Amino acid sequence: MVLSELETVLSLVDEKSVNDFIEILENAGRVFVVGVGRTQLSLLAFVKRLNHIGIDATYVGAINEPAITEKDLLIVGSGSGETAIPVAIAKIAKKHNAKIVHIGSNMSSSVSSMADLTVRIPCRTKLALDSEVESQQPMSSLFEQSLLLFADIVAYMIIQKNKINIKDLWHTHANLE
Amino acid sequence: MVLSELETVLSLVDEKSVNDFIEILENAGRVFVVGVGRTQLSLLAFVKRLNHIGIDATYVGAINEPAITEKDLLIVGSGSGETAIPVAIAKIAKKHNAKIVHIGSNMSSSVSSMADLTVRIPCRTKLALDSEVESQQPMSSLFEQSLLLFADIVAYMIIQKNKINIKDLWHTHANLE
Amino acid sequence: MVLSELETVLSLVDEKSVNDFIEILENAGRVFVVGVGRTQLSLLAFVKRLNHIGIDATYVGAINEPAITEKDLLIVGSGSGETAIPVAIAKIAKKHNAKIVHIGSNMSSSVSSMADLTVRIPCRTKLALDSEVESQQPMSSLFEQSLLLFADIVAYMIIQKNKINIKDLWHTHANLE
Amino acid sequence: MVLSELETVLSLVDEKSVNDFIEILENAGRVFVVGVGRTQLSLLAFVKRLNHIGIDATYVGAINEPAITEKDLLIVGSGSGETAIPVAIAKIAKKHNAKIVHIGSNMSSSVSSMADLTVRIPCRTKLALDSEVESQQPMSSLFEQSLLLFADIVAYMIIQKNKINIKDLWHTHANLE
Repeated sequence: MVLSELETVLSLVDEKSVNDFIEILENAGRVFVVGVGRTQLSLLAFVKRLNHIGIDATYVGAINEPAITEKDLLIVGSGSGETAIPVAIAKIAKKHNAKIVHIGSNMSSSVSSMADLTVRIPCRTKLALDSEVESQQPMSSLFEQSLLLFADIVAYMIIQKNKINIKDLWHTHANLE
Repeated sequence: MVLSELETVLSLVDEKSVNDFIEILENAGRVFVVGVGRTQLSLLAFVKRLNHIGIDATYVGAINEPAITEKDLLIVGSGSGETAIPVAIAKIAKKHNAKIVHIGSNMSSSVSSMADLTVRIPCRTKLALDSEVESQQPMSSLFEQSLLLFADIVAYMIIQKNKINIKDLWHTHANLE
Repeated sequence: MVLSELETVLSLVDEKSVNDFIEILENAGRVFVVGVGRTQLSLLAFVKRLNHIGIDATYVGAINEPAITEKDLLIVGSGSGETAIPVAIAKIAKKHNAKIVHIGSNMSSSVSSMADLTVRIPCRTKLALDSEVESQQPMSSLFEQSLLLFADIVAYMIIQKNKINIKDLWHTHANLE
Repeated sequence: MVLSELETVLSLVDEKSVNDFIEILENAGRVFVVGVGRTQLSLLAFVKRLNHIGIDATYVGAINEPAITEKDLLIVGSGSGETAIPVAIAKIAKKHNAKIVHIGSNMSSSVSSMADLTVRIPCRTKLALDSEVESQQPMSSLFEQSLLLFADIVAYMIIQKNKINIKDLWHTHANLE
């Protein structure tokens, strides 16, 4: 059931938005992500993998978080696009003229309206009634799972596109563990 | 490709081990998890969901981490079962007579040998050459993805079994966000 | 120099506000803290110690963060009282009718105006020009140091007041390390 | 009382070890820190400040933690020098030929024996009976406080030595908050 929901929802992600996302990612000076709860965890997994494939990435709140500049990208993960912290951070990023990508379900949202690009993962919720996929899973599980898999697929597409040797990635992987 | 790998690997998880895992979870005083990197992120998502469904869960290193006792359970997520921190923590948990569950790919490992129960997610690696599924994805992506989905499926099975009303879960969800 | 600055600034904290803070802490159902950067680190150290002395405490963003209720307390650590995330979170806590304590330097701030109690640590900054102590240290170091020591002194006062046996505290201390 | 304990303990830190520490810090390719509990929090505050003053620093377990090399430095904060995770990590760092500095109270410890430099903060504990300062504060509070202040003093000394303009530091400070 879980896998079938994931298959449906991922197949509905607009291909052009994925390609645009990859282009923005590759041209960004540095990538910042922001989200809360389990959505944040999926974004952190993405940050880890981006660093492995040579894209400099961090998260809002990281101990060694640098200043954002107009060359950088903020990825906001928020199904509703109305979560308080992501909205507050997106506003600040906007002031610094950073690019913003919103990955969410509700594209008529505060975050979407600030975004240079929106990537819609169509999980139905109270704030995204027009989304195609209604999940039987609790809370926002489907969105969080989709976000992790979507991010890993994007990383994989970048690996394929740039012919990165997967075995070489281990050289950049943390080795104190 | 990602979804097909996930389907294969999850279908190979032994059903009895899943049921045993659920029983141990429901009888645990408190659940602790330990893992590193993206594996830890998947475990943290599980901790969050367990708390939502009424199972008291935390992670090793949490700010409000309590002392573990012989009534408690330590879940070790480690594909190889040889990662330094999980091995060190499992040894300490053992001294405190806590129960240990190892979720991993390599069942001939240091962690497995200490575990009361092992749940095998058969991703092939250098240390788990006999695992059935060889992934095309980079590093341990497939294990980390499988772990998140496996954990969410376990949470869903507990919800079904105990007829927990999904809508009620929001009352226990963080509301400062 | 550092110690002398700390002595000056801590001696200027209003004693009545300290006693009021301790009373609110002891009557709170659960304590939540919010802050960013090194200020957050000082607050996390406080959360850890509060749990040791039997006061249930957590932080905004914790994996097992529960819902806040009107019986609970939110401690906002923010020198300026204008930091985006703390302000956003204080607003939400207010809606849930939780009590709010602001520990900061600028008491004519957004956070202060929402607070039931303010504890002023008088470090001079652009937004707290009337504060008595101008530090030679970089950035907000003095505030962050003062906050940690202030919090530890508060914890010590609670220990003294309730005749808590310090040696017993180790039973509640994390033992998986 | 707290400030007087801090003054005593900090005045007993060997000056030569401080100067050696600063030299190692300035010559390190990258600085990694490891510690647990409140000790880790003090180290994280140090990492944050090091990055501000241009020294590339991170912590073991950070999302964007890179691989350690023989040009890098691992700072182990552990009063006892016997805490499980720091000991395990120091062993791995040693294998990668990284330099190790132990900041602690017990210099006849597993961590000390692996260290290129030890910095002793003489808080008396069961494992550091010969340390000069016996604290009235609970648990290891004095060590954790001393570690934060010691680290901030070291950062300040580097700022003075290299005539870094404090106001310029804000350009490197996180600005999404």
